[in-house]
Amino acid sequence: MVRVAICAPSATLPRELVAPVEHVASHYPGIELIFHDQCFAEAGHFAGTDEQRLEALLECANDPTIDAVWFARGGYGSNRICEPALTYLSRAADDKIFLGSSDGGYLLGSLYKAGIGHPVHAPMPLDIKREGGGDAIARVLAWLSGHPETLEPHLDNRPTVAFNLTTLAMLAGTRLMPDLTGHVVMVEEVSEYLYSVDRLMFHTTSVLRHMNVAGLRLGRVSDVPENDRPFGSDATAIAQDWCARMAIPFLGPADIGHDFANRIVPFGSADRNLPLGVVRAPAAA
Amino acid sequence: MVRVAICAPSATLPRELVAPVEHVASHYPGIELIFHDQCFAEAGHFAGTDEQRLEALLECANDPTIDAVWFARGGYGSNRICEPALTYLSRAADDKIFLGSSDGGYLLGSLYKAGIGHPVHAPMPLDIKREGGGDAIARVLAWLSGHPETLEPHLDNRPTVAFNLTTLAMLAGTRLMPDLTGHVVMVEEVSEYLYSVDRLMFHTTSVLRHMNVAGLRLGRVSDVPENDRPFGSDATAIAQDWCARMAIPFLGPADIGHDFANRIVPFGSADRNLPLGVVRAPAAA
Repeated sequence: MVRVAICAPSATLPRELVAPVEHVASHYPGIELIFHDQCFAEAGHFAGTDEQRLEALLECANDPTIDAVWFARGGYGSNRICEPALTYLSRAADDKIFLGSSDGGYLLGSLYKAGIGHPVHAPMPLDIKREGGGDAIARVLAWLSGHPETLEPHLDNRPTVAFNLTTLAMLAGTRLMPDLTGHVVMVEEVSEYLYSVDRLMFHTTSVLRHMNVAGLRLGRVSDVPENDRPFGSDATAIAQDWCARMAIPFLGPADIGHDFANRIVPFGSADRNLPLGVVRAPAAA
Repeated sequence: MVRVAICAPSATLPRELVAPVEHVASHYPGIELIFHDQCFAEAGHFAGTDEQRLEALLECANDPTIDAVWFARGGYGSNRICEPALTYLSRAADDKIFLGSSDGGYLLGSLYKAGIGHPVHAPMPLDIKREGGGDAIARVLAWLSGHPETLEPHLDNRPTVAFNLTTLAMLAGTRLMPDLTGHVVMVEEVSEYLYSVDRLMFHTTSVLRHMNVAGLRLGRVSDVPENDRPFGSDATAIAQDWCARMAIPFLGPADIGHDFANRIVPFGSADRNLPLGVVRAPAAA
């Protein structure tokens, strides 16, 4: 039995989404989902105060009976608890899988930087709301059940990370930013003007250029608002342009995005011959 | 006669704004404004291609008969020409004043980093469009005419910089970011959700915390869009919170913003006893 604890380091999960997520999970008898009550807490923009969100994350991640911690959703806020999380996570967190995307990338990146657990870019429980959202949930549960065909199809033997572009830009240049030397970096974005995508690419590639990354892949850039004038190029051209300026190889598309099709990207070196597609030393022993 | 060349490193200046700006300038007989034709060029989002915008900037800044270079407006894009600008600016740029704000902050910050010229946070010609915009234009021309009462009123003997928060966040962590040790850092923002202001403060203070800055001052945070839920605090509380987390002194308000009242902030150490409020070694000699 894989025991998955769900908490909300960013914004609140609507309680009515628990039942449809559990319905999907009922088809995966090897998976048990445990929703932490903090998922439904509210404090202004966030799913409870910083202290509440941190406490819930630590309870889930420091519980030795839990195998994976799944972030309920993004929506902004996990960056506010990254530093204390790194401080107070125990040895019990080291072998855990941490699943999330979007704003959850602050934690995934920070954990990866600190070498704690196995961060994995993946759909989140809130995705059940989307058209086809059941597929997104099922993909995570299938991956946890040992089905590597859920992995992002471009993954190769190079270490890889995946981020929302805004999230990566806000990490890039801070001390929470992991060293991505030799990594394939996948990014996706949603609801940003193309000039903002260009600006975020400027910043992010300006930092990545000094890391000797293997290259950049672009996921979907969706729901781009219309500006008062056309930008003059598209998201792929923007990514190619900044990669060329910064001498970063542009490697093509990535099958990630703010949509139900968002695929699984375990941070680091994915090994298809191991269960769950991640190098889990204790699990493999 | 102070000769001021105007170019547009970011977006296009509507041509019909030239006359009202020149009307204001007619009251300052010691100032001559020279609008570069590139101000009116268009290429997608920008006032001409990167090459056109760079060429115009270099023509203005490398012209020894010009005293000041004034950025026509923000609107995104000056970051795309910062690196080649630093490469190709000549000795003639070293003694010049560079005036701008908003997106122009990429150039101001890059020039400051490189020690080229005298970057000055100031209103821009496009501000003539605002209610009270004539006052904004007049403030710049009065400052150039030697009226130090146009300076931001909190300026003291500590070196100071002023930026749009998004602009500073995108510089922070890149190699274009100036060393702000000992500096008072003023920031302002416009048209961003409070959660986005919080996120930008997270990133910016995460970088500034390692620079031993003198402290942060908050300018106006205006035109905040309404989100689907209240954030839970206001812009001042957000700035205070991140300053406290990062052990950066919060110094109070700054009289800057995306509005006609935006005051003048010469980068570095302003000396009220020198003309123009900047330490201009050759001019003072």
